[in-house]
Amino acid sequence: MNLLLFEPDEIKDDNTVFLQGRRSQHIIEILGCRPGDIIRAGAINGPVGSGEILAIRGKGKNVEVVLLFSAQEGQPVHPAVDLIIGLVRPVMLKRLLAQATSLGVGRIFLINANRVEKSFFSASLLKEENYRPYLVQGLEQAKDTRLPQVTIHERFKPFIEDCIPQIAPDYARMLVAHPGESQGLKHLLESDFAGRTLLAVGPEGGWVDFEVRKFIEQSFVPVGLGRRVLRTDTAVVALLAQLMLLRGER
Amino acid sequence: MNLLLFEPDEIKDDNTVFLQGRRSQHIIEILGCRPGDIIRAGAINGPVGSGEILAIRGKGKNVEVVLLFSAQEGQPVHPAVDLIIGLVRPVMLKRLLAQATSLGVGRIFLINANRVEKSFFSASLLKEENYRPYLVQGLEQAKDTRLPQVTIHERFKPFIEDCIPQIAPDYARMLVAHPGESQGLKHLLESDFAGRTLLAVGPEGGWVDFEVRKFIEQSFVPVGLGRRVLRTDTAVVALLAQLMLLRGER
Repeated sequence: MNLLLFEPDEIKDDNTVFLQGRRSQHIIEILGCRPGDIIRAGAINGPVGSGEILAIRGKGKNVEVVLLFSAQEGQPVHPAVDLIIGLVRPVMLKRLLAQATSLGVGRIFLINANRVEKSFFSASLLKEENYRPYLVQGLEQAKDTRLPQVTIHERFKPFIEDCIPQIAPDYARMLVAHPGESQGLKHLLESDFAGRTLLAVGPEGGWVDFEVRKFIEQSFVPVGLGRRVLRTDTAVVALLAQLMLLRGER
Repeated sequence: MNLLLFEPDEIKDDNTVFLQGRRSQHIIEILGCRPGDIIRAGAINGPVGSGEILAIRGKGKNVEVVLLFSAQEGQPVHPAVDLIIGLVRPVMLKRLLAQATSLGVGRIFLINANRVEKSFFSASLLKEENYRPYLVQGLEQAKDTRLPQVTIHERFKPFIEDCIPQIAPDYARMLVAHPGESQGLKHLLESDFAGRTLLAVGPEGGWVDFEVRKFIEQSFVPVGLGRRVLRTDTAVVALLAQLMLLRGER
């Protein structure tokens, strides 16, 4: 936890925040804080700033920390990439949501595809209260406060034929990852890399040809990662990192 | 499993390989192969080629597959990056070894550092027979046969002061990842990106300043990944992917 996050409705009018459970224990046991210490803190979808430990009450699992928050930096910039992912098994999805969030994504579209197991859509992880902690974990890691917006799309065709045309004008480029595709992201190096990117990465087993064609019909450009075939989670991190390099993000 | 791998000593003089256990079950149950079918296969640290299913014997857990291997492509190219990692907890190390191998690394140095928990060095995972399956998993994923060479270094100072000077001449550049470092890999874009790279990524919690100074004394260049602080496993994949883009690897 490199940044302590709280919900916007947790802050009182006098700028105090009362923390219990995981967060108060982290402050005491891992950070070893005492009253008077100052830690980095931020409001989810709000500003980053500092939190002064005003008081520590109780002990062990019941410890409560009272924090006085001062906003300093405003909200971090909006990430320049949105992500489409062919839904993966829950254990991989947890990790992927945290990792993608730590690298910075604005929206995450979890979609169906031929090689997605139907049972994945009934996973309890797809309820907001269950996946949100993994997004928060990614934000805490990367010192960000902007929670990605996650939406779930159980049917491929309506997503690609109806949703994509609606959101396409938001993007300067749309890319679909496809192993074996000879063109890597390097061809984008010469271009002026402004604007937003929409990146689609297939489920385990990849997109089927029909799906790649549908993406191309919607003006997605297929891109590869060399001759290597990567797992979905590895490919997402790898491509987000390459886009970060191309943008020259600091 | 995108490439079926076997040990060099598993192939007989008549080019047959007898497979049991995980691999034979994968061929039957996941790939649904029958006698006469041909799959991609390769010898660990040897050539890639095709394997014809000659026979399937037995059933269920005891199924045995007889494969006739024909080498076709020779051994994949030697990866251009070696990796130093501050030892991480075993559950992350398993994933990290598989992911780094799938992206292609020649050597992996697992080293001690101030923020490495001492108990990690007594983890049973550090025995070759226990970590090797994760390397093989990475190769099977990426269709590679070159097993990274893993070495374990329990003391930081002898590693940085004695080992590094011995291997430094092998590298065109040595980089140490350090969050908050303002210089990203983008400055390497203009340079001629030939030769090998040695990349050092810190343990969970990062390198301490003393360690970064020791790396710099040995001519490592500190590089960052923007303002975001990433977990060790995310940082390794992100930096390997950025190096891949800079090399223009296909």
